[in-house]
Amino acid sequence: MPAFPASPAMARALDEARAAAARGEVPVGAVVSAGDGHILAAAGNRTLELSDPTAHAEILAIRAACAALGSARLPGTTLHVTLEPCPMCAAAIAAARIAVLVYGASDPKSGGIEQGPRVFAHPQVHHVPEVVSGIGEAEATLLLKDFFRRLRQPEQGSSH
Amino acid sequence: MPAFPASPAMARALDEARAAAARGEVPVGAVVSAGDGHILAAAGNRTLELSDPTAHAEILAIRAACAALGSARLPGTTLHVTLEPCPMCAAAIAAARIAVLVYGASDPKSGGIEQGPRVFAHPQVHHVPEVVSGIGEAEATLLLKDFFRRLRQPEQGSSH
Repeated sequence: MPAFPASPAMARALDEARAAAARGEVPVGAVVSAGDGHILAAAGNRTLELSDPTAHAEILAIRAACAALGSARLPGTTLHVTLEPCPMCAAAIAAARIAVLVYGASDPKSGGIEQGPRVFAHPQVHHVPEVVSGIGEAEATLLLKDFFRRLRQPEQGSSH
Repeated sequence: MPAFPASPAMARALDEARAAAARGEVPVGAVVSAGDGHILAAAGNRTLELSDPTAHAEILAIRAACAALGSARLPGTTLHVTLEPCPMCAAAIAAARIAVLVYGASDPKSGGIEQGPRVFAHPQVHHVPEVVSGIGEAEATLLLKDFFRRLRQPEQGSSH
């Protein structure tokens, strides 16, 4: 029994992560929701497809939500993302004034929230969201592990 | 006599910063150049115009250079930017594998390189560019100071 069952928004973020994996992208998904739970934007990682190193799921979801609302700021919204954001995405979350950040798995390798740069822990950040972690963690971790295992064993099964 | 005269690329970045100010945006400009000095992309801040909190000069220039080259990575390139990058832009520079970062003014308020999160100083960053600062610093600082002084005194002159 997970300590934190996945919310509908995290379930959608996990769907976006699965779709990213199917496209050959690192499986990370993100969803921006309004205060009433209405989903404003959802996206998966598309760095390879778009030839854009900034096309992480969080950045694409934030840009889409801003475009939908016609505003560079998203106060009162929640961002669900399957993996701990990197420092680029953490700073974008702060710049967008997102109220709540909910993420699944921690990312010791590239994370920027609870390790490394700890973007929200310095006075140079102008807004700090409420942060909740561990939601949907098991599924998010499984997706990533499965993706990277397949990357390491691309030929397996073809010669047996 | 400045210790570091502005290069052609920094001069172009300063032009982009001036153009941003003329559009009412915080005056920051950025240029991505190839190893031979050829300019691949240039951009100024457009966060207000595009309703996009990620539309910093650096991000727009990186995205444009990647689009021009059809690659999510820009090895061998140099990014000139008039102001110390924020953590979002610093992490994007690392993700793009940019070889050299040259910036003008330090940014104690929002910077992410030499203060605050110090994005390049943690093992979670997967690439660290060579960093040169202080190029074009005086002009970059003057543009920013002038912009924020005008913001604080929008009505001056109208009633005298």
